[in-house]
Amino acid sequence: MADKPSKGLADVVAASTALSDIDGQAGRLFYRGYDIHQLAGAATFEEIGYLLQRGTPPGQAELDGYRAELVAGRTLGKLVGADLAEVSAAQAPMEALRSLVSLASADDPDKDSNAAEANTRKAARLTAQQPILVAAYHAARRGQPCPPADPSLSLAGNFLFQLRGAAPAERDAEILDTCLVLHADHTMNASTFAARVCAATLSDMHSAVVAALGTLKGPLHGGANEQVMRGLEAIRAQAGADPVAAVPGAVGERLAAGEKIMGFGHRVYKTEDPRATHLRQMSAELATRSGDDTYYRMSRAMEETVFADKGLYPNVDFYAATVYHYLGIPTDLFTPVFSVSRMAGWTAHVMEQHADNRLIRPDSEYIGEQNLTWVALSER
Amino acid sequence: MADKPSKGLADVVAASTALSDIDGQAGRLFYRGYDIHQLAGAATFEEIGYLLQRGTPPGQAELDGYRAELVAGRTLGKLVGADLAEVSAAQAPMEALRSLVSLASADDPDKDSNAAEANTRKAARLTAQQPILVAAYHAARRGQPCPPADPSLSLAGNFLFQLRGAAPAERDAEILDTCLVLHADHTMNASTFAARVCAATLSDMHSAVVAALGTLKGPLHGGANEQVMRGLEAIRAQAGADPVAAVPGAVGERLAAGEKIMGFGHRVYKTEDPRATHLRQMSAELATRSGDDTYYRMSRAMEETVFADKGLYPNVDFYAATVYHYLGIPTDLFTPVFSVSRMAGWTAHVMEQHADNRLIRPDSEYIGEQNLTWVALSER
Repeated sequence: MADKPSKGLADVVAASTALSDIDGQAGRLFYRGYDIHQLAGAATFEEIGYLLQRGTPPGQAELDGYRAELVAGRTLGKLVGADLAEVSAAQAPMEALRSLVSLASADDPDKDSNAAEANTRKAARLTAQQPILVAAYHAARRGQPCPPADPSLSLAGNFLFQLRGAAPAERDAEILDTCLVLHADHTMNASTFAARVCAATLSDMHSAVVAALGTLKGPLHGGANEQVMRGLEAIRAQAGADPVAAVPGAVGERLAAGEKIMGFGHRVYKTEDPRATHLRQMSAELATRSGDDTYYRMSRAMEETVFADKGLYPNVDFYAATVYHYLGIPTDLFTPVFSVSRMAGWTAHVMEQHADNRLIRPDSEYIGEQNLTWVALSER
Repeated sequence: MADKPSKGLADVVAASTALSDIDGQAGRLFYRGYDIHQLAGAATFEEIGYLLQRGTPPGQAELDGYRAELVAGRTLGKLVGADLAEVSAAQAPMEALRSLVSLASADDPDKDSNAAEANTRKAARLTAQQPILVAAYHAARRGQPCPPADPSLSLAGNFLFQLRGAAPAERDAEILDTCLVLHADHTMNASTFAARVCAATLSDMHSAVVAALGTLKGPLHGGANEQVMRGLEAIRAQAGADPVAAVPGAVGERLAAGEKIMGFGHRVYKTEDPRATHLRQMSAELATRSGDDTYYRMSRAMEETVFADKGLYPNVDFYAATVYHYLGIPTDLFTPVFSVSRMAGWTAHVMEQHADNRLIRPDSEYIGEQNLTWVALSER
């Protein structure tokens, strides 16, 4: 009855979506029909959140209303507030976010409803909440107070403000905003697919995004951006006066040892990931401004080495690493920043799944022994 | 490049597994090659946990060692202990279990490792912990103390003891044990598949089972057993002196209105679910012993009505509902009981996924508008 297994479901179409589309051959990504190259630097993350969750680009009044919802959502619920200190002391960032978002459902008045209106409200609240959780977690684990949210700032600007404890330069906020735009959705990536598998049992939006957060945590998915930075740091720590010159040798050694270099290659793109193009530019800009462009130049050298040796292109994680680094974001919060953006896409996918649902329940191929006879314990 | 979409992935083989196999035409279920009909009533849940997680039926010494691990795992970690009261007061059972298992990773010494030995230890700990969490949650939400675990009791017996606050009759513990055996694994069901999608990013076992818990929560999956009981209760509440006689009319009305009757039909089985056979017998036994077999007889009448009208057979959830009811388990804990059992299978699937991993990242079909032009906000 079933066909041969497709390990990893590569090339298997698991769902229909109107949220995003990838042309892997041409290296193009679209959100609801708009090319990411049109959006990067031109649309704000708030506009993209609205576009993904509510279907069309917002007019001014619609955007004002959505922003007001996001500003109102910049709160920690009672249960999160009660448990934040202990969670932050005991769990690593993605582990903690998985816990905190799960706890947060307790305070959502729409938690038990999958109706379109309830999901729409929850999507905005979860999108507003995610950066607040990351900043509150970071403050709590250092035993420092988190400054109250500033309603005059954008989601990206307020996130940098709460994370750093000081108002960010306008251009820093713009760059992070563009990063959030670039990460907001990406068809059936593993975390989004996990969210849809969960939502397809008619479970609720919080359960689905908690599943997504746990999935994003893995080093083959969201965890890759952090690994990129740690790789650069390791090479720099071992190199002498010229870390850039040390890159080809260090990378070559790892490739020769059969190791995977994180931040390169993608199952869907056969050419450059269009998001990497923008992230590379922003990394260069921030590097120059920082006065120490070593990590940027090391990244360029790494990109050349990996392409020459493996023919692989950098993916979204590769230049995101140095962009976040130059923005002063701690390395272990890189994947949480990814989640701040992807929350917009996850929640939109849950709404899409609930709107036209069928249980996602694949088959499996059995590869074990057959027709064994159970022997009682006393005779084993 | 990709084929036509398979909505819900019906008949798509998503993974290979040596854990369980279903013959949907013949209505047979196997755990590692052993027919469930051989196991039900003959093997304990501890033997099945060992079989699934460690590969073979345990000998006496192996089983003693595994039981000792499970007994040692009957604890709440520090973080769960600290947050239990607040979570239990603010979250419904499956919502709370999603949170508590996420919190519990903080206290697992192996939480950061996906190595086979670490996963083996975590699988036993998570299996031991799940009934403890359910019982502790139930006690905490009522503001009552949870009795300390009794190391002389089986997992099923201790669960009933901690849940009720009194030692269960031996036959009650045996029946619950058989229920746990019957629910332990079931190929690529939605929650197990969610766990594997999560684990395939090389995320950790706790993240994967948290994803599974959120997925099991949905009424199209684990939530169905609770819906079955609520359905029976609703009919009984509205019926007169003879609730059994009221069943055909009440069910017929719902079917005529196009409503789904929970607990019937299964994507894979084309005949009776072999688990339902055993659950029906146990429901009958408990009903007779209880002195009020109304719900059992109502269930039989419902089974006949649905089969006559729709040709659908009862699935695992249908008679599990009355079995749990007669065992004195609160209706809103039926799905948590399912999770107590399925934890054995989920953890085994995570180990299997990690042992031979490939990222699970399907394609999607884009169904939205194409090649739109982004217009600046000021011009919209």
